[in-house]
Amino acid sequence: MPKESDIIAHIRKRAGAVEGLRVGIGDDAAVIETRGATDVLACCDVSVEGVHFRRAWATPKLIGRKALAVTLSDIAAMGGAPRYALVSVALPRAAEATLAAALMEGIFALADESGVTIIGGDTSSSPDSLFLDTIVIGECASNKAVTRGGAQTDDLIFVTGSLGASALGLALLEQGYRFDESVIENGEVKPAEQGVQNKMVTAHDTIHADEKLFQAHCQQAMRKHLRPEPRWQFGRALGESGLATAMIDVSDGFSTDLWHILEESNCGAQIQAARMPLAAGVSELAQSLPEVTALHRALHSGEEYELLFTARGENQSAVFALAAALRLPVTLIGKITRSRELLIEGEGTVEVLLPAGYEHQI
Amino acid sequence: MPKESDIIAHIRKRAGAVEGLRVGIGDDAAVIETRGATDVLACCDVSVEGVHFRRAWATPKLIGRKALAVTLSDIAAMGGAPRYALVSVALPRAAEATLAAALMEGIFALADESGVTIIGGDTSSSPDSLFLDTIVIGECASNKAVTRGGAQTDDLIFVTGSLGASALGLALLEQGYRFDESVIENGEVKPAEQGVQNKMVTAHDTIHADEKLFQAHCQQAMRKHLRPEPRWQFGRALGESGLATAMIDVSDGFSTDLWHILEESNCGAQIQAARMPLAAGVSELAQSLPEVTALHRALHSGEEYELLFTARGENQSAVFALAAALRLPVTLIGKITRSRELLIEGEGTVEVLLPAGYEHQI
Repeated sequence: MPKESDIIAHIRKRAGAVEGLRVGIGDDAAVIETRGATDVLACCDVSVEGVHFRRAWATPKLIGRKALAVTLSDIAAMGGAPRYALVSVALPRAAEATLAAALMEGIFALADESGVTIIGGDTSSSPDSLFLDTIVIGECASNKAVTRGGAQTDDLIFVTGSLGASALGLALLEQGYRFDESVIENGEVKPAEQGVQNKMVTAHDTIHADEKLFQAHCQQAMRKHLRPEPRWQFGRALGESGLATAMIDVSDGFSTDLWHILEESNCGAQIQAARMPLAAGVSELAQSLPEVTALHRALHSGEEYELLFTARGENQSAVFALAAALRLPVTLIGKITRSRELLIEGEGTVEVLLPAGYEHQI
Repeated sequence: MPKESDIIAHIRKRAGAVEGLRVGIGDDAAVIETRGATDVLACCDVSVEGVHFRRAWATPKLIGRKALAVTLSDIAAMGGAPRYALVSVALPRAAEATLAAALMEGIFALADESGVTIIGGDTSSSPDSLFLDTIVIGECASNKAVTRGGAQTDDLIFVTGSLGASALGLALLEQGYRFDESVIENGEVKPAEQGVQNKMVTAHDTIHADEKLFQAHCQQAMRKHLRPEPRWQFGRALGESGLATAMIDVSDGFSTDLWHILEESNCGAQIQAARMPLAAGVSELAQSLPEVTALHRALHSGEEYELLFTARGENQSAVFALAAALRLPVTLIGKITRSRELLIEGEGTVEVLLPAGYEHQI
């Protein structure tokens, strides 16, 4: 195993300097310059082998990337800009010598994409499991953080992206499917894989094409689970715009996370089942994995890292304009109500929707 | 096991509110108001069962307390004031249901003492070991943090408190001795235990008194290891005074941590063996535990959480006055030199002192 000082020296070299950071890695604590009218945001997420991830399912680079992604998502959900990160890691004594570097490679890749500077952390050995704790420090304009508690009656409810794929991806992984990063790029099936659909079709080709499409949907679902894209750009822009009245990220599941907003805002909501943005493949694969319906997956799938937020009715078009500017799909799915209950409207029916996402049993 | 939401609800209630904290526990991230001319300090420390602590050696309350203590010590070593903390914890599935609450009790006890508000964190289960990560956010006046890199030739070298007891305590724990919090109070043997020294002494009493004193020294050493007192008051005061040119806390061991200052400040040092402040019992117990000398223990003992710092010669009396005001012993142990080597002066000898503290093998 490498020495801690070697790992830190490597990370310190890689982390670099950035304006506003007075002292980075290598001292007892990092020192950040504050600017006049900003607030500091801070949050952390622990990732534990066998609980949050399995090393048989994802490369260390993906594990590191996701560990940072989930914490960036929290800063996004406050309407803040992520600035700095600290990473604590406990490495299994039996692990390969390259594990720390590979984890950090994934963390640095996402940090670079999102403009985050790694300013500190800690490393240790672990007798058995791999542990990571990612801490992100962000900022927002003074008193402009978007909490869960600001939703009001008649506010509209929006969600970014699509839902259901993460739970589907997890189910596939549990069934033995494996994610192959080489099959898809930027979340889309590579042209070579899609090509079969554009050829003249024979019976054999149809089966082949169906199989290819099935595999592509599986890969996309596993990708969403293992390589989520936190909405840090949109979250930050929404915070700066002042359009959102309340916001949370979908980590426990849409139904549970919406319920958190309702609890903190002391209100209710009515959503429309037909408006739920189902992720590609969730409906198609519901036949292959029939334990739950596609709608159920979308309503309760955790670890989606989409943003769920509310805004005043008169700001609807401004919300869509902001989303369009960042090329991010945003869907209007319902409305905040006065009475403290969460209702879902189907075809001619209105039912109570219970929060049935992930409740951490620890 | 309790549900995560129950644990968080308990912690949220206990954490309370404080001026400057806009959003505490219960949202996606904490929101802190910044003040004009301050810098933000941030650091974290991971504590892993079987690596940093054993549950057979310390109560969960002590484990939680120490986890926060080591991170407060880092903020102190920057000359900063600790303000906020986040705590991530992964709880063994097989652990007792009260573990989380007991850990938090220790963390909150020290947080209360040091004026720190718990503003966030994360909880998870763990397949096997207990894992904690403590994050502390502090502040200092703009550009006034004390780094490891500011020592200059002829600066004086000081250390707070005394050294050697933590390594001794660890050795005792490894040999089967156990810490009993009821035996000592505030780091001192209780009067009832000391009383034997004031009686008229018989031969039997002498043996009995020696045994009592031996036990008291053992308890004090284990206390230093399991319940260290981070020097957050003195570190902060030293930072505010502007007296320290460089500072670090003794976590890896005096020799190694002084070497860190020399590396970052690009200088050397000469220290005097006779000036090393040996902790009570370290000399006395060196006969019972003869593997290393008392001086060796003091020079290389890790996890002491004393402050090691440098100051200009003309500020010597100001340093001692500050220490006296806070009733903390501070010892002048040597001087910064130009040539990049660490020398130790004994009785008529000067030898090279190699950094031989704890190098984390991970």
